[in-house]
Amino acid sequence: MEKSFVIKGNVCQTKNPKELDLHEKAFAVCVDGISKGVFDVLPEEYKELPLYDYGDAMIFPGMVDLHVHAPQYAFRGMCMDLELMDWLNRYTFPEEEKYEDLAYAEKAYGMFVDALKKGATTRASIFATRHRPATELLMKLMEESGLISYVGKVNMDREASEKLTEDSAEISAYTTFGWINAVKDKFTRTFPILTPRFIPCCTDKLMEELRQIQMAYGIPVQSHLSESKGEIDFVKFLRPNNLFYGDVYDEYDLFGKNDDINTDMKTVMAHCVWSTDEEVELMRKNGVYVAHCPASNMNLTSGIAPIRKYMDLGLNIGLGSDVAGGHSDSIFRAITDAIQVSKMYFRMVDETYKPLVFSEAFYLATKGGGSFFGKVGSFEEGYEFDAIVMDDSILVHPQTLNLAERMERVVYLGLDEKNITAKYVAGRKIL
Amino acid sequence: MEKSFVIKGNVCQTKNPKELDLHEKAFAVCVDGISKGVFDVLPEEYKELPLYDYGDAMIFPGMVDLHVHAPQYAFRGMCMDLELMDWLNRYTFPEEEKYEDLAYAEKAYGMFVDALKKGATTRASIFATRHRPATELLMKLMEESGLISYVGKVNMDREASEKLTEDSAEISAYTTFGWINAVKDKFTRTFPILTPRFIPCCTDKLMEELRQIQMAYGIPVQSHLSESKGEIDFVKFLRPNNLFYGDVYDEYDLFGKNDDINTDMKTVMAHCVWSTDEEVELMRKNGVYVAHCPASNMNLTSGIAPIRKYMDLGLNIGLGSDVAGGHSDSIFRAITDAIQVSKMYFRMVDETYKPLVFSEAFYLATKGGGSFFGKVGSFEEGYEFDAIVMDDSILVHPQTLNLAERMERVVYLGLDEKNITAKYVAGRKIL
Repeated sequence: MEKSFVIKGNVCQTKNPKELDLHEKAFAVCVDGISKGVFDVLPEEYKELPLYDYGDAMIFPGMVDLHVHAPQYAFRGMCMDLELMDWLNRYTFPEEEKYEDLAYAEKAYGMFVDALKKGATTRASIFATRHRPATELLMKLMEESGLISYVGKVNMDREASEKLTEDSAEISAYTTFGWINAVKDKFTRTFPILTPRFIPCCTDKLMEELRQIQMAYGIPVQSHLSESKGEIDFVKFLRPNNLFYGDVYDEYDLFGKNDDINTDMKTVMAHCVWSTDEEVELMRKNGVYVAHCPASNMNLTSGIAPIRKYMDLGLNIGLGSDVAGGHSDSIFRAITDAIQVSKMYFRMVDETYKPLVFSEAFYLATKGGGSFFGKVGSFEEGYEFDAIVMDDSILVHPQTLNLAERMERVVYLGLDEKNITAKYVAGRKIL
Repeated sequence: MEKSFVIKGNVCQTKNPKELDLHEKAFAVCVDGISKGVFDVLPEEYKELPLYDYGDAMIFPGMVDLHVHAPQYAFRGMCMDLELMDWLNRYTFPEEEKYEDLAYAEKAYGMFVDALKKGATTRASIFATRHRPATELLMKLMEESGLISYVGKVNMDREASEKLTEDSAEISAYTTFGWINAVKDKFTRTFPILTPRFIPCCTDKLMEELRQIQMAYGIPVQSHLSESKGEIDFVKFLRPNNLFYGDVYDEYDLFGKNDDINTDMKTVMAHCVWSTDEEVELMRKNGVYVAHCPASNMNLTSGIAPIRKYMDLGLNIGLGSDVAGGHSDSIFRAITDAIQVSKMYFRMVDETYKPLVFSEAFYLATKGGGSFFGKVGSFEEGYEFDAIVMDDSILVHPQTLNLAERMERVVYLGLDEKNITAKYVAGRKIL
């Protein structure tokens, strides 16, 4: 497939959090899947490449969803009157049990992948369920979609429904070994990620097994951290000797950079709403990513993560839809939610932390989360070429708009699949 | 036009805030524009009426938007990085100035009315601008849409841009007299509402003039109240002798029930984010409505209105989109925003005020705000028949869903104009 070409349109991106980088009717050049930059006048050397002119359309880097649960897509926008632990037990676990059944999984994951493919997201870090066959099916579907993703078979050997809980730490580990071996070299766009559900669902024994798996494979890790007060209290009860929640992951070498095992294992932790200063400091030191999921944190009454504080401290941060704690799979929505909750944090909690501005939240959704995947989230030279092309003409207006206004409006009004006219992932056109 | 008929579908409503009232494949009966109730089996007496079977579609009462600025629709979803007073001066006033030009107003208001007509809203209380001709044009367009609304020519004689400020209190009052006389009996669905912009924009002299107008006409009143800290400080500076912000409106008999002038003048005040106990008590006593606009309160960093507190005290409350402080004109969005901000208020500010549940927020969007228009917002017997019929089949799902789940999902995922298959306002089919 052709991976060298030029697309022309209104290119909008954020090279840094502080400013929009806007180019009207400009040329974005892709050579072998890698961006060569954005040019107002097409350089001579690229004039032989095929040129696709999208006219007055908007061109953004693809959106990065750093935290999403594929099996929860089925019940997005429902069951939103409960907090985390009750919500898990009453709605989430019963739904996830169904993925034992591959026919159900195929139907449900098909809908999830179809939605993700048609939307603005080009990269995602995905939770499946604890079921290996359904997880492999999801990976196959993701691979076929053309999107690039990490997908995790979930590890959970306690504190869930009987059907969803794995029979033992050993069986969980054994299944995970088999799964990683089967998938680690199988796909070109879909990769395994170690996925202990969260501490309440993982015994010490299982955590120790996962450490052993990491010694062997050193793949990325994703989990949940300091999301909800009830959850955090439960972790304190389960692990009274740990200094803080993240310290448990760290004790098992599942918390970012790890000199002991000489690997730079990438770790992303969803939420971090109530992380203590010590936890935040360890995350910073270890390069652990925060997947900020504002909609979910509102829906499950978890709270507001102090993202300005994390940004000031230099943490790695991306945005997550957290479907179905979050009800929308749109990262555009996550951008505006991130801005809104930061405003509420500023106004209602602590006025020392200034609200996020639009450029900052857009940056988190692109380069912020994108760096979990490498050089992703920008059209700067050397970045993998992820692009979405959007027709915003459906958004009528009586006045003349400049590009900054159109960019903000596309995000706030949430242009969706019906308005995405083309989509490229690492230079490959998938829509 | 036929105003007696039966529609069949999945009827979902909230007769009270505490519970959903759901009827699968039921019959909603309308006689002369008034609801006769919802029936699982169609009573004999209505079997002669025309029956429209909408199959598996969802039927909701129409949504009520208790606070929206028509001239701001043009810049919805833009300019969201500022707080209220700066946002007004930098974006809002310059845009509103344009409505001096009737050709511009026709284009812009045409877009606004078209969107409102196609969406889920059946009733609205609308701010125009200070310009009488453009306001009358907006009223004409609203009347033609079939929606039922209050529309206000704005009064403002200070503290705005030179072009937008009226030349004097007398001219503002004189224009308003002329406008009310011209429109008060002109339409069947569109009614004038007295609209002092807010205290910062209205001199004492103008407020006194508006009191005189109310003595003559006793029409409803809409304005803004205790929205933003900067605004409130400014009102304190301007009116140091008033006990609280709402006391200024009350001093001029523009704050709800008023025994002095023997009229039950309905008043709706947008926001009430920071209302003091005294202000709240006066609102309760006078029956003043709160138009709760959660998206706007987030976007402009105003804060979170303690709606649970207001509900507990028995205040009249409806929801408002507050376009363009709010970026979406969808009252479905206002429902989910209201729930989300109430959860943040509970978690981050005061745990004595429990979050709103879905049924409560849906109630506010229908019967809550609907009562400002009379018996509106329900299919109970005697209510004006406002209905929206929605095809939710676009929202794919692998599992079986019950009606409560479908209802919540329609609202959270924000089905919009593309999925509204029919719409009735006071028994009149407008879509």
